[in-house]
This record gives sequence, C-alpha cells and structure tokens, in this order.
Amino acid sequence: MIKGTVKGKVWSSRRVPSLPSGALLDVETESGARMIAFDPLGCNTGETVLITQGSVAAAYFNGRNAPVDALIIGSIDDDTNT
Amino acid sequence: MIKGTVKGKVWSSRRVPSLPSGALLDVETESGARMIAFDPLGCNTGETVLITQGSVAAAYFNGRNAPVDALIIGSIDDDTNT
Amino acid sequence: MIKGTVKGKVWSSRRVPSLPSGALLDVETESGARMIAFDPLGCNTGETVLITQGSVAAAYFNGRNAPVDALIIGSIDDDTNT
Amino acid sequence: MIKGTVKGKVWSSRRVPSLPSGALLDVETESGARMIAFDPLGCNTGETVLITQGSVAAAYFNGRNAPVDALIIGSIDDDTNT
Amino acid sequence: MIKGTVKGKVWSSRRVPSLPSGALLDVETESGARMIAFDPLGCNTGETVLITQGSVAAAYFNGRNAPVDALIIGSIDDDTNT
Repeated sequence: MIKGTVKGKVWSSRRVPSLPSGALLDVETESGARMIAFDPLGCNTGETVLITQGSVAAAYFNGRNAPVDALIIGSIDDDTNT
Repeated sequence: MIKGTVKGKVWSSRRVPSLPSGALLDVETESGARMIAFDPLGCNTGETVLITQGSVAAAYFNGRNAPVDALIIGSIDDDTNT
Repeated sequence: MIKGTVKGKVWSSRRVPSLPSGALLDVETESGARMIAFDPLGCNTGETVLITQGSVAAAYFNGRNAPVDALIIGSIDDDTNT
Repeated sequence: MIKGTVKGKVWSSRRVPSLPSGALLDVETESGARMIAFDPLGCNTGETVLITQGSVAAAYFNGRNAPVDALIIGSIDDDTNT
Repeated sequence: MIKGTVKGKVWSSRRVPSLPSGALLDVETESGARMIAFDPLGCNTGETVLITQGSVAAAYFNGRNAPVDALIIGSIDDDTNT
C-alpha cells in the first residue's frame, strides 16, 4: 500500500455506468505523484490516508466489476511512529 | 485511477482480433507520461479524463479477454476543486 | 519481489472492515521509495525484508478480499551474498 | 496500453515449458524504457506497436497460464494524428 | 517481460510457508533497478535472464497461492541481435 495526502475532490458527471457513486479524491503520494482514489471512508482534504491499488482495489466491490484501481482503505493515525 | 489529457486518436488497422473496436486515445498523464487508453465515452482532444489501468480495465469487457489495460472511465468536470 | 528496510509501524484506527488486523510496516525499498506492507512475520525496525506486491499479496488471505497489495513474505538473512 | 518501437528479436533457448513458442521482441517505449513483448502479429524492427501488459496480456493465451506479461496487440498506422 | 542480469542469490530462512522452496535471485534490470526473482531454471550469477512479473508470475505455481510476483522464465541467448 502507499501513503498519500488528500488534496481535494474530483467530480466526473460523464462516466461509465459501472463506476460506483461515491467520493473520488485527488491524492498526492509520498513521491509527489498524483492519483485519484475512491474513498469509502469520508476523508477530508489534508488527511493522510492509506491506499491500495490494482485489482485488489476493485475486489472491494465484491464482483461488481467496478473500474476502480485505487482505493482509500484507512486514515493514518497522527501518532504513527515513523 | 489517474488523470490525463487527451492528445489525439491512435489507429491500428493490423491488430489482434480480441481488441474490441472503439476509439484508442493517446493521453498525457499529470506526470507527463504517455499512454493509449480505450475510450467508451467519445472524449475529445484536450479533454481531461479519468483512467483506470490493469486487469481492472479489461474487466469492463465482461469476460471477453479484451487485451485492454487502460480505460477511460470518466470525463473530469471543469469545476473540480483541486 | 523487492527488498526493503523496515522504518517503523503505521497505525490506522479508521479503516475499511476488510483490512485484516495485523502489523502495517513502513518500508523503504532499495530505490528509496516508501510503501506500507502487511507483516505476518513480526519483523522489526531496521530489518531487511522481502516484499511481494499486487493481487499476489492479496491472495495470501485466501479469498477474503483483503485490500492488501504489499505483503512481507520473508526476512532476508544477513549473510545473503549480494 | 503503451506505444513502442521494435528494436529487434530476443532468443531464449533455455526457458520454462509454459512460455509459448513465438517471437519475443525487444521494444523501446516512448519513455525510453526497454521491455520484451510476445508478438503474435509478426512485426518488424522499426515498427511502431501497441503493447498491453500484466495479467491482461497473459489472458490472450486462454487459460494456458502463459508467463507472458507484455503482448503486442497492434501495429500503429503511420497516419495516426498525434 | 523485462531483461535482467543475475547479481547473486538471496536467502530467507524466516519466511511465510506459502513461499515455495527454490532459488531467489537478486537481479539488476536494464534500467538499473533491483528485484528478487524466483528461479526455476538454475541460472548463474552474471547470466542475462528474462523475467515476468505480477500475478502472471504467481500463476506458474498452478493455484498454490505462491506469493511470487517475479519469475525467471528464460535465459537469453548470447547471440540475441539487439
């Protein structure tokens, strides 16, 4: 998984039907790269989050063929000792 | 997922039969990398799009073993606040 | 697989239910990149570990759809001759 | 998918049995990276090709567990307008 | 697939049970990156090898959920014309 910081929300009105409704967050990773992750947890801008990628992310949607390859799976506690 | 900007269309007359017919778009990602994505939405050059990758993209074609590993799944609204 | 050095633990109290309980370790890879890996072996900070990624990592959890895309699968012996 | 230019052929006499017979081409991608792709189309050195990667490439071989993670799926027409 | 040069062996006495026994080789790729690949062919240090990655590599172990995401699938002949 990778760590990232939420930078804001992304809106996509024109989309494939199989993309589940829910928040799409713009996230900056520790390497400075940007990605868009589906957020099932309701995270906020500035929050440090944990992201899983690839078919592992899509599997969260239990066989619905959701075209999601990046998923926020946790919010990282502030006192994480790294 | 990643964000990208459509740069134009790509044509491939000589191709494997399992590649579905449909638009193949040349896209530049936020990092400046280039990729070719299958477009089910009819996007235009200059449009900002949302792309999913890997087997998650191929799953869009419901078990037809389509050799597609990059798929446009949405057009990003202009007023996205990032 | 890739080699990495354990830098510390990561805590995520607010998380998706399908993320198994267990240690999440912050690891620096040989290229200097950082990732978070699930640790089934009880590794310590400073240890050199072997990591597998993607759906291969998730398969370790035997069909439980665990959203884990990076897994520590071994601790590398000190006298490895590289 | 990604675009690449064929640089030559690669020969591997000592190989795992599950690697299908067929051409293995050395390809340079637009970013300058090199990869080896299985070629079902008979492409030539200097040709611009379209490559799919990962399990999507292996799925072309219909369940034969072919250890192929990069597959040429098309030759890109010269008049592609990018 | 990618080409790499074998740099040596890696030993991991403390490991997850599902990691098959067999040689783990430290390989340097053409881009200079390092990875650890499972070797079913008995390759030697200095040999140029062909590597497949991801779930495609794990599929070599026929459904045993082997946590292997990089597999040597061939040794590249010296007179390869690239």
